[in-house]
Amino acid sequence: MFDPVDHPHRRYNPLTGRWVLVSPHRAKRPWQGQMDAPVIEARPAHDPTCYLCAGNQRVSGEHNPDYKHTYVFGNDFAALLNDTPAPPENQDPLFRAGVARGLARVICFSPDHSKTLPELSLDDLGYVVNTWCEQVAELSQDWEWVQVFENKGAAMGCSNPHPHGQLWASNFLPTEVAAEDEHQAAWFAEHGTPMLLDYIRREQADGTRTVVETEHWIAVVPYWAAWPFETLLTPKAHVTHLDKLTTIQKEDLAVIIKKLTTRYDNLFNTSFPYSMGWHGAPSSAANDGVHWQLHAHFYPPLLRSASVRKFMVGYEMMAETQRDITPEQAAARLQQLSEVHYLQNEK
Amino acid sequence: MFDPVDHPHRRYNPLTGRWVLVSPHRAKRPWQGQMDAPVIEARPAHDPTCYLCAGNQRVSGEHNPDYKHTYVFGNDFAALLNDTPAPPENQDPLFRAGVARGLARVICFSPDHSKTLPELSLDDLGYVVNTWCEQVAELSQDWEWVQVFENKGAAMGCSNPHPHGQLWASNFLPTEVAAEDEHQAAWFAEHGTPMLLDYIRREQADGTRTVVETEHWIAVVPYWAAWPFETLLTPKAHVTHLDKLTTIQKEDLAVIIKKLTTRYDNLFNTSFPYSMGWHGAPSSAANDGVHWQLHAHFYPPLLRSASVRKFMVGYEMMAETQRDITPEQAAARLQQLSEVHYLQNEK
Ligand SMILES: O=P(O)(O)O[C@H]1O[C@H](CO)[C@@H](O)[C@H](O)[C@H]1O
Ligand SMILES: O=P(O)(O)O[C@H]1O[C@H](CO)[C@@H](O)[C@H](O)[C@H]1O
Repeated sequence: MFDPVDHPHRRYNPLTGRWVLVSPHRAKRPWQGQMDAPVIEARPAHDPTCYLCAGNQRVSGEHNPDYKHTYVFGNDFAALLNDTPAPPENQDPLFRAGVARGLARVICFSPDHSKTLPELSLDDLGYVVNTWCEQVAELSQDWEWVQVFENKGAAMGCSNPHPHGQLWASNFLPTEVAAEDEHQAAWFAEHGTPMLLDYIRREQADGTRTVVETEHWIAVVPYWAAWPFETLLTPKAHVTHLDKLTTIQKEDLAVIIKKLTTRYDNLFNTSFPYSMGWHGAPSSAANDGVHWQLHAHFYPPLLRSASVRKFMVGYEMMAETQRDITPEQAAARLQQLSEVHYLQNEK
Repeated sequence: MFDPVDHPHRRYNPLTGRWVLVSPHRAKRPWQGQMDAPVIEARPAHDPTCYLCAGNQRVSGEHNPDYKHTYVFGNDFAALLNDTPAPPENQDPLFRAGVARGLARVICFSPDHSKTLPELSLDDLGYVVNTWCEQVAELSQDWEWVQVFENKGAAMGCSNPHPHGQLWASNFLPTEVAAEDEHQAAWFAEHGTPMLLDYIRREQADGTRTVVETEHWIAVVPYWAAWPFETLLTPKAHVTHLDKLTTIQKEDLAVIIKKLTTRYDNLFNTSFPYSMGWHGAPSSAANDGVHWQLHAHFYPPLLRSASVRKFMVGYEMMAETQRDITPEQAAARLQQLSEVHYLQNEK
């Protein structure tokens, strides 16, 4: 008899159409590889050498204002530029280049250099949520896609520990998003309902993979999770886009983000690294993007401890994403944790 | 006027159907993030604590033989097992599980614990090539897909520095390979020629992205490379599968692997980390997989130095792979390097 806790199997990600290989028995193997240094540094509330702290000078020579909540500025090293010429039209099909225009901004979450999202007050998190929504509302006028994201922790390539996120806006629908758009559109055409809303209804009824539920939001380890403690965060009602959230949904978003990221930090008593980002309907989506359900992905790399991560390499790069514990086991671990941050406990 | 060295643009990967965002101007940004420790350890030729060295005991309790060239054994923590039951058939389309059966093996490249591929003699590399080919020939009888790969270096999740690779065989075609199969089949249906062979002809004529060329093989930084110094290695003649290589092609494969991996090590005077792996026609491919061209991918993470890598995080995970130097710039760097290994130079 098939038992998902014992037997290797594949799971299908209906958002992207890709499969994930699940090898639950493999979590037992010994680890002789790289250990990430756990983040234990106590940081000052203001670091004179940090280019994101209030009042400090950036590489561009500009000085940051004396901001009190969030602060948004144009990325001094933007990967996308506003006025890039288009590559020639007639191309060899094996050497195809496409036009890429856009812009990139940095969002400082707080002037406090020492804090991360779970350590911010609900009020301060509210400013972060509002800034995300305002930025997306503004930039969606001009750009097809606005990718809001945060890289947290050195293990996730974050080049500055000051709490901040980014947004990259573009004239094109990026590859990952195009896959999600296509699969959600196909589901909607067949079922007449948004795929992720149908999915979340079943998760609510089941409960096994639910990590946090608030009045208006739910965070689950998705059935098809790739990263060990990956979560999907989505409103419980149908919402297509960040700029369509109601005031109450926004306030409640601050609540669930605090709960979710606190659980993450409490898992290994460390500032939990991750990349997170928002996906909603593209600006030019047909029928106001009714097939879309707004959601955020959290992709954290840690697997066994603050210093042992999952590497997506080798087989994963060449063949298929593979995971060692089941999504249900990961959810059970996250469910058991306190919603009081471990550093606050110590005080 | 569009200039690919100055202007951000996207490039299309015809093997997978995915796009890559190229932001050449961004290579100038400062780096304040994680530095990987450069690998400078001198290792002994035999390490009594290494479970891959000849004669030593493995976790399973078994002792390795006193092997002289390559040595293959069943992975003691295989992600795929031979006799796994299948998940139930009638499934909710949002909770789909598929059967995963297979096996995993470890291939020790040499008894010498201190060496990596570029440091092996051509003779010893010949044994590695032959072992790959023999393993694939044997396992393709039973399994739809045999993924041969190597994770090299701690930065690529390699849990033991002893020179070794792996193979994972499965009853299914993994996601990445399924994408390559589909795109190569579509090209063949339209043009009547294997896509990668057409591609390589144009690279040979152009030369800009060619890193090494031997009598029977060519390695290029592909036009659509995702990783900074990614290369694609393929025979110059049409070959569908590792077990279809002639003796002469195999001997020459040892030559080009030595040249290519030596250049990699010489780039930053460090043992260059990467994941590499082989792709060829699936076992049950129609028409003997005539639409396939055998190739290996090398995905190395280093970007600027032995300690600064490219992180595929945030935007890359949520939206689209992004690179900071053009494939042509990367190829030019690799072209300038010596084919004498930097450690050999020092002697
Ligand atoms: O099998 P190893 O070397 O222990 O493990 C390594 O390679 C595997 C296959 O690429 C990956 O799934 C693991 O994440 C990685 O740490
Ligand atoms: O923009 P940053 O923080 O300097 O850079 C980081 O995030 C980017 C967007 O996810 C990635 O492309 C980089 O590889 C990563 O190091």
